[in-house]
Amino acid sequence: MDISTVNSLSYEDFVDTFGNVVERSPLIVAAIWPYRPFANLSNLEARISELIDSLPESGKEGILRCHPDLAGRDLQRGTLTRESQEEQSQAGMASLNPEETTRMYRLNTEYKRRFGFPFIICAKMNNKAAILRQLTERSGNSQTKERAHAIDEVKKICNLRLRNIVLPDIQNKL
Amino acid sequence: MDISTVNSLSYEDFVDTFGNVVERSPLIVAAIWPYRPFANLSNLEARISELIDSLPESGKEGILRCHPDLAGRDLQRGTLTRESQEEQSQAGMASLNPEETTRMYRLNTEYKRRFGFPFIICAKMNNKAAILRQLTERSGNSQTKERAHAIDEVKKICNLRLRNIVLPDIQNKL
Repeated sequence: MDISTVNSLSYEDFVDTFGNVVERSPLIVAAIWPYRPFANLSNLEARISELIDSLPESGKEGILRCHPDLAGRDLQRGTLTRESQEEQSQAGMASLNPEETTRMYRLNTEYKRRFGFPFIICAKMNNKAAILRQLTERSGNSQTKERAHAIDEVKKICNLRLRNIVLPDIQNKL
Repeated sequence: MDISTVNSLSYEDFVDTFGNVVERSPLIVAAIWPYRPFANLSNLEARISELIDSLPESGKEGILRCHPDLAGRDLQRGTLTRESQEEQSQAGMASLNPEETTRMYRLNTEYKRRFGFPFIICAKMNNKAAILRQLTERSGNSQTKERAHAIDEVKKICNLRLRNIVLPDIQNKL
């Protein structure tokens, strides 16, 4: 989809198209629809990022809690969103051995007990080893630092999901 | 569910249970989970209301755009959420005659063109005649006034949905 097509969408089609670029949070893209026309993909990304930053800290934590665990119950039950399923599979989360599954469960549980939201990382930018390492390392952060880190990861995930829908800026300029 | 059960839920179960009390906006209840323990149903309602009020105006409009039209395409396609399906049916929106359907479509379209979000009304507190009257009357409001009115309706819908899940305060006190 080129940017002029994006700019021509009704809010209903806009929310249908981009509703899950922030996991289970269509409110976010629904909020930025009036900022059309978007100059390009970067501008669309920037508007989403600004909207997230404008939320109260509790609202940001709300976004985090709408995310599934990595290699967690939604993956096992097959109830992940299409996007999460693809991302977790690509990062090797769907093919952990029993030992890795147990370790992941234990680390996720400790992380959630500490912070009250799930561990979020842009799976497409990391492999299994990097994910496990970061899950351990980031568990030592303060609540404030870790919330900010997690929101940065949400934005990375969002930007990659947007790139699956909208043509990159260079192609939009042609 | 009594309030002590509500207060014992993990954030995952809390979001699963209350995720649609604000239509397609699980972020809202996910954000208020840390405010446990809730004293009673009224306290839970108040926390949700405060969270909505704390959002930027663009975020409030985002909530509105996550709502379906009354007697619109989601009703016709069968893609309404369970809660909306029940509410719209009860208000007679699922049994409009062709003339009423056309009128509703025309008024909804005009309203959306004017405000950039759908007409929202607590269907359970209104009948077909009242809905059609308000849709016409509220179309004359300013953007600011109508956004505030629509958010008030979102809160009424939310409070009725909460009452379908949580015991009323009097029973919680027993």
